[in-house]
Parts: sequence; structure tokens; C-alpha cells
Amino acid sequence: MTRIVEVTELAPRDGHQSLLATRMSIDDLAPACEDLDRAGYWSVECWGGATYDACIRFLNEDPWERLRTFRKLMPNTRLQMLLRAQNLLGYRHYEDSVVDRFVEKSAENGMDVFRVFDALNDVRNLRRALSAVLRTGKHAEGTICYTTSPLHTVDKFVELAQQLRDLGCQSICIKDMAALLRPQPAFDLVKGIKRKCGEDTVVHVHVHSTTGVTMVSLMKAIEAGADIVDTAISSLSLGPGHNPTEALVEMLAGTGYATRLDSARLRKIKDHFAKVRPKYAAFESKYTGVETDIFESQIPGGMISNMESQLKQQGAADRVQEVLAEVPRVRQDAGFPPLVTPSSQIVGTQAVFNVLMGRYKVLTGEFADLMLGYYGESIAARNPEVVAAAAKHAKKEPITNRPADLLKPEWEDLRSQALALEGCNGTDEDVLTYAMFPQVAPKFFQHRAEGPKSVAQAPAAKGGGKEGAPGKATDGGGKSPVASRVTYNVKIGERTRHVTVEPA
Amino acid sequence: MTRIVEVTELAPRDGHQSLLATRMSIDDLAPACEDLDRAGYWSVECWGGATYDACIRFLNEDPWERLRTFRKLMPNTRLQMLLRAQNLLGYRHYEDSVVDRFVEKSAENGMDVFRVFDALNDVRNLRRALSAVLRTGKHAEGTICYTTSPLHTVDKFVELAQQLRDLGCQSICIKDMAALLRPQPAFDLVKGIKRKCGEDTVVHVHVHSTTGVTMVSLMKAIEAGADIVDTAISSLSLGPGHNPTEALVEMLAGTGYATRLDSARLRKIKDHFAKVRPKYAAFESKYTGVETDIFESQIPGGMISNMESQLKQQGAADRVQEVLAEVPRVRQDAGFPPLVTPSSQIVGTQAVFNVLMGRYKVLTGEFADLMLGYYGESIAARNPEVVAAAAKHAKKEPITNRPADLLKPEWEDLRSQALALEGCNGTDEDVLTYAMFPQVAPKFFQHRAEGPKSVAQAPAAKGGGKEGAPGKATDGGGKSPVASRVTYNVKIGERTRHVTVEPA
Repeated sequence: MTRIVEVTELAPRDGHQSLLATRMSIDDLAPACEDLDRAGYWSVECWGGATYDACIRFLNEDPWERLRTFRKLMPNTRLQMLLRAQNLLGYRHYEDSVVDRFVEKSAENGMDVFRVFDALNDVRNLRRALSAVLRTGKHAEGTICYTTSPLHTVDKFVELAQQLRDLGCQSICIKDMAALLRPQPAFDLVKGIKRKCGEDTVVHVHVHSTTGVTMVSLMKAIEAGADIVDTAISSLSLGPGHNPTEALVEMLAGTGYATRLDSARLRKIKDHFAKVRPKYAAFESKYTGVETDIFESQIPGGMISNMESQLKQQGAADRVQEVLAEVPRVRQDAGFPPLVTPSSQIVGTQAVFNVLMGRYKVLTGEFADLMLGYYGESIAARNPEVVAAAAKHAKKEPITNRPADLLKPEWEDLRSQALALEGCNGTDEDVLTYAMFPQVAPKFFQHRAEGPKSVAQAPAAKGGGKEGAPGKATDGGGKSPVASRVTYNVKIGERTRHVTVEPA
Repeated sequence: MTRIVEVTELAPRDGHQSLLATRMSIDDLAPACEDLDRAGYWSVECWGGATYDACIRFLNEDPWERLRTFRKLMPNTRLQMLLRAQNLLGYRHYEDSVVDRFVEKSAENGMDVFRVFDALNDVRNLRRALSAVLRTGKHAEGTICYTTSPLHTVDKFVELAQQLRDLGCQSICIKDMAALLRPQPAFDLVKGIKRKCGEDTVVHVHVHSTTGVTMVSLMKAIEAGADIVDTAISSLSLGPGHNPTEALVEMLAGTGYATRLDSARLRKIKDHFAKVRPKYAAFESKYTGVETDIFESQIPGGMISNMESQLKQQGAADRVQEVLAEVPRVRQDAGFPPLVTPSSQIVGTQAVFNVLMGRYKVLTGEFADLMLGYYGESIAARNPEVVAAAAKHAKKEPITNRPADLLKPEWEDLRSQALALEGCNGTDEDVLTYAMFPQVAPKFFQHRAEGPKSVAQAPAAKGGGKEGAPGKATDGGGKSPVASRVTYNVKIGERTRHVTVEPA
């Protein structure tokens, strides 16, 4: 009696996001789609905040067009996206009608599975997006952002799973963005969810591979009854990325579990990405090995490189260790949020500021908001002294209600602003692009007609010689779209200015 | 109730052998020894055929001196070596008295644990070396070379374990040199050995990480009762190497198992090898990812690169895939030997010949010997047509007795030959060096007085400028003068300014 374990392939989204700074163009993704579509995956993750951002910021690609291309090329497989709940694919909370509109348009353009998460695991932030998904008839997956702290117990996570079930989620995702999920907790957590929410609750496990233990965690999760697991094809796996798909297949040989995956198709997908990857060498993550220090610092691999580049920009590249030690402290002051977009950037940047300028001498606007409840509730009480400092800095009071409740209807405003932009095509999709990336959208609309601009380069021939292909990268580091543009609130004397910094 | 799992650290032997072509000099190993000695390892593997070979061939280091150095620097930890049984550290069978002498001298110079293996798992080849170890009072570990074939069943391996137990081995090693040991067979095999040979049988598991599944296999082996497992510190792990030590420690958190390892010491060992590794970049294995094709070809990572370089020398670099497909066929003709030194080289080279010149049109002398029984018995019958071709080629008859039984006493001859060499110091150790590496020893003896010659190089400075001085390490950690001047586009309100920043 063999039980089938379903698999989600991550290569087209989190795979290249984690390893190649999300820079892969549709030209390099499309050729793999036929094999992806026929390999037997439960779903293919192919869309999310960073891919959307990279499309319009670096690749002059319309992300909606990319989605429609995936839909056309993968007619037999569920397309899956990662959605930041009330934040959509952006960094702020949106008013409910914008959330509804985004979900409708995504479903209309071909999305099947919406993995909806909130960085603080605040269910109030998840509710609207999940019900919007359910209204479209698509698959609503509620997400538990996994982290560790004195308060994050298996019971607490299971309780959250039950709340997500109660909201009507068809599956529960355990999302381990920093590879912190060790084997035993993986087992206990899946077991706990199945016990509490019913054996028929579909549990979907997402882990990164950074700490070197999570392949074992997948095994244990499967033994505990996990239904679907996430992996990335071997040629786009490991390091800050994910466990290799082919290894998962082989790992299960002889056990009571098996996948549906077709090894011949996997081989072709692997060969394709092995060929493509070197063209993005300029964006490769430097962190390709195993890093167990993360168990202490909690910092995901991508975040470390972000912080390094922030420090380098400040001429303080040698202070990484201090920042790594500061992060857990800042996180505790903030009530132990999981570290995932945007909380990872907010906590990480504040830790950088603390090290460079003295602890909480300068607060970013985002960190003040986090401390004051404007991102939602945290699991633990926040440090009252830092909350007071944040209130003083931001001239705002702490809130306890759902952040989006403070927002007024904004669709019509966003629409008229978007429509005023040169090159905006007047669709709701374009309005959403503007809504989520107001700084980037204008330039993108203006230049969209020029067509996609790949940042892939011909791999350097050994011994040099070949020059980069046209459309070469202007941005040297393996930086994520977020890292390359940082916004600070800088206080000079009594005046606070909102300053955005990006590489020239 | 927590059960302690003991750990062997592989970095000083198989770690750099698998990742850096065995090139690490004692200068780069010695600084880690204090931490290795105090971290709580059951043993530190630090000596074997390839390290011995590399010492005299590339590093002008006396391997016996290296052993004595390890002994001095690690007084509290078992030193462990890998011994090719009747082949000692060479590539041919030695007459019994040479085997005895080698083991005695190794024990005398400080070796504690002898992991003794035969490439064909022929117990007759293991017997003499094991009893020599037992006579010295040191730890004799009998080895099962793990492989897969229609004949390699769990029962067969367990039977072999029992034979090794009967020979007096204090522990049984399951040696998985090509990362073929999947989780379920790992569990079944350890369980089978414990059942058949007694629960008190010490089972020691050695796996490589190449296929990406063996961390899970370690977990399953531990669940089945494995007593000791092999890992390499994270900064010298993964790819064709081994699973990371720190990840093993973390993997067990919360389970009923724990190691004795001290994480602070591990961190120091990790940092040391992270600093040292870039100096050996020229020798880095190109195969750093996961490769599950090995389950079909059975070819260990190191062997693939050997074959590639053989093919390149023949101007046939494009025929790798054909050779990979040929290897399993040659292996079947040879009666399914495990592929490990020297059988891996013998089978691999013959596969290259078959592809380039036609199947068995040309036989290597070693392959003929393998087919005729001169390396021992294989588990399956050999292809009689190929045996006949081998007999014709080598002008020898097949044998069925123990290969070393054909050898006449050879110590005195070896001794007088060695003593005739310029620079030979007249010790038994020097005679053994000559016996095992007759082509390399003369030059080594001649130049030994010049002292060790490291092949480490200064890592290339980023952005060019600094030149690497051979044998000289410059620490890359500092700030480069170029990097500290940065240009930003700074947006304040609606205005963007081009700002260059440099240290005051």
C-alpha cells in the first residue's frame, strides 16, 4: 500500500527568486513549461511579489502577460501563486476592494492556487484575501509562517491552522521561509494539524534548504501525513533555495510513499535550467552552502545578502556579525514576528540602523508602524519602551484593530492616478500594477511597448573573451528587488525626510 | 530518554579529498586540531590512500610525519584511517607480511581506528589486515561497501556483516561512497545487522551527499540503531562530499537522539575551514550540486571528473553521456562490483575504452585482472565471453583463490630497493612509502629535505588588482579601497540626486 505524495515545483517562482535574485525572464522559463505541465506536479508555483516586481523593474515584462503565457503553456497543471494577503504583492496594506479586485483579476488571468500568508500570522489580515479567492471558486490555501520563539509552540500553530480551516481554506501551508523547521517539529506540526483539523485536511509543506536539515523534515512531514510538499528541480535547488525535486523522488523509493512524477520529464526540466542558470551568474546568491547559524539569527539567506549590501553601501561591510546578533533582539522587541516579507526587511533594516547609529536612535517609518500595530498583531507583547519611541517618532498612536480597517476606499483614486500615466492601457490589471508599485509602474508603462528586456548574459567563456549579450545587467549584486531600493526616514535636526536610496 | 549518537568528523580526510582533490596541507589542517580534539567527536578521520598519495606527490610532506602531528595535536580523540585491506594504500595486492608491517607502523605512529574495506567485499581480502589490527590492540572496523544491483540485497549485506563480526571486528561500517544509500535501505540494513549480529554490534554509517537523499538516510539509520555516523564540517561539506556536521546536530533536536558535540567548537572549526577553502579554489570539484543520475550510473562524483578528463585528453569530451551509459554495462559484465577505489577506476577506464574503440576491443591490464579474479571474487558470475577475452589478452588463467596467496614474501626485496634510493631514511615507514608508491617515492625521498610545499594560493581579490602569491594567504575579509566609494541615486520627495559617498 503506497500513499501518493503530491509535489509543487518551485523553480519558476521561489527557485530563481532564492538563487538568482528573481531575474529569470519568460524566455528562459517558457521552454520548460511543456515538461513542467506533463511531469505530474500537483501545482507549479510561478507568480508572486518578487517575480511581479522584477518583471516591471528589471525585465520590462508585463507580469499579467507572463501569467497568461504560463496558463497557455501549462493547460494541465494548477498554477500557484504566493499572495501577501492584505499586502497583495506590495509592501503596504490595501483597502478591501483592491484586494478583491486583485484576486478576481488573477483568477481571471489563469491563477488556480492562492497561497495566502501574513507576515505576522494575523488571521484578520488573511480573511479578506481568502474569502475573495473562495468567491472565485479557486483554491484558497491558508498559510502558517513558521518560526521559532518561546511563544511559537506546536499548539499555537495548530490553533492557527484550525482558524484557517474555519475560514474555508482548502489546504493549509506550513511555510518555512528560513529553513528553521527541524524534523521533529515538522512531524509534530503535521500530526497536530491532522488531529485537530481532521485527517482530511490537506497539509502542504514549504521549506527552504539553507540549514541542511529540511529534506529530513520533509520525510518526517510525509510520515506524519503531509499531502503535498514543495521542491525545486535540482539545477535550481539548494543553498538559500529548496530541496531538489529528483532527490525527493529517490528519497521515497522503498518507503510506503511515492510521488506521481515522471523522471524522464524531470530530467528534461533539470537539463533546461542547468543550461539557463549560468546566464544569470551575475545574480547568483553567494550563499550556496549550508548555514546552521540561522537557527540562532532566524535570518533567511536572501535577507543576509540584503543586509550585507545595505552595510556595504554605508561602508560598514565588516559589521555583519553585529547585525546578525542584533536581529534576534529587534525581533524580540517587536513581539517575535516571523521573518518574511515585509517583516524580514523591516526588522533587518532596523537592526542595521541600530548597529550603525545606536540602538533605536533612528527608527525607520516601517519599523515604527510595526511596533504600533499597523502591520497587525504579534504573538508576544512588544517592548513598551520601543513602542513609546515609535509613537513619538511617528506621531501616531498604537492601534489594535485590523490595519486595513483604517483605510478608505481607494480603488477609484488609484484608477484615476494610473490612467493619467503615459502608457497605461486602462485595464484593471494596469491599475493594480500601479497600486502595488507606484514608484516603478510609471516608467514601466512608458517603456512597455519596447518589449521584454532580458538581463541574462552569455555565460563567460573560460579565459574570458565573450561579452555580455544586449540587455545586460546594470545591477551587479545578487540583490533582490527589495534590497536594491531602500527607503529610510531620516531625521535631520527636527525635520524628518522620507529618503529612497537605490544603486546608481 | 535520549540516546547518544557518536560522530566521526571527515574534514581532514574525505572532506578535502572529495571537494579539494585532497590538496590540503598540514599547515591548513593543524590550526583546527585543538577544536577537533575537544568538540566531542568519537573519531577524526585524517589518513588514507589519497591523503598519503597527495602528501608525497603534490605537497612534499611525509605522510607519517603528518600522522604524528595529528597524534600530537589531538591527544584526546581517536584518529581514524581508511585502509584498502590487502591493497593497503596502493592499487595492488600486497603480500601478507607487508600488510602486517603497515598496520603495525600505523598503530605505532598513532592510528587508533582502522576502517578496512575491500572494493569487491571479498572477505578473504579483508581477513589479514583485520587480524593485524586486532593484534595491535587498536580498533578494527570491518566495512561493507554499499552498492545496488539485482544481487545486492539487505540479506546479503547482513551476511557479510556477520562474517566481519566473526573475524572479531569491533564495529561494522556501512560505506556508501557514491551516495546510493536511500533512507529505507539504510533503515533496513542497520536493523538487519543489529538483529543478526546482536544489538551490541556497533554500526558506523558513512555516506556521501551527492544525491541529496543521504541526510535522510542518516536519520533513518539512527532510528534503526546506528551508533556512529560520519559527517564533515559545513564549510567542507556537500556536493560530492558529505552531510554537514552542524546540520546533523540540529536535525536531532527534539528527537530521542543527540550528539555529544559542542556547537561553539564546531563553529570555530567551520570558520577555520571556511577561511582556508578559498585558497584551494583551483582544486575545487566542479560538481557541487545534487546529482541523482548516480542512482542509474552508480558513478561517484570524483569518478565522473576523472572520466571527463580522460575523454578530454582523447578529444572526445562530447561523449560523456555514452560513457555514463556504458559504465553499468561494464559493471554487470564484471559481476556487479561496488565502484570504489580501485574498481571504480578500472570499470570507468574500461567504459571509456569501450566507447572510444568499440566494446572490449581493447582491454586494460587491470580490467583483465578484475575479470580473471585477480582482485577477488565478485557477487555475481562474470560475463564468460569477456572473461575469455581477458584471458586471451592477459595470457593468464582465471583464478578462484585469494589473490594474495599467489604472492611470494616481498618485504626484503622492497626494503633493499627502497634503501638504494637517494634520500631514503632507512625506516620501515620509508620502505612502506616506496612499496605503495614506487613511482612517486624516489622523487619524494630526494626532495623531502626541502620541506612541505603547500599548493594553496591566495584567493583572487575581487575587482582585480591584487595578485595571488603562491603559497601565501592574504585574508580577503577587509574592505577593498574601491568598494568603499559608492554612488547612489537618492530620491528626496520628488527630486532625484546623484550622490557619491566615500569615507570621511
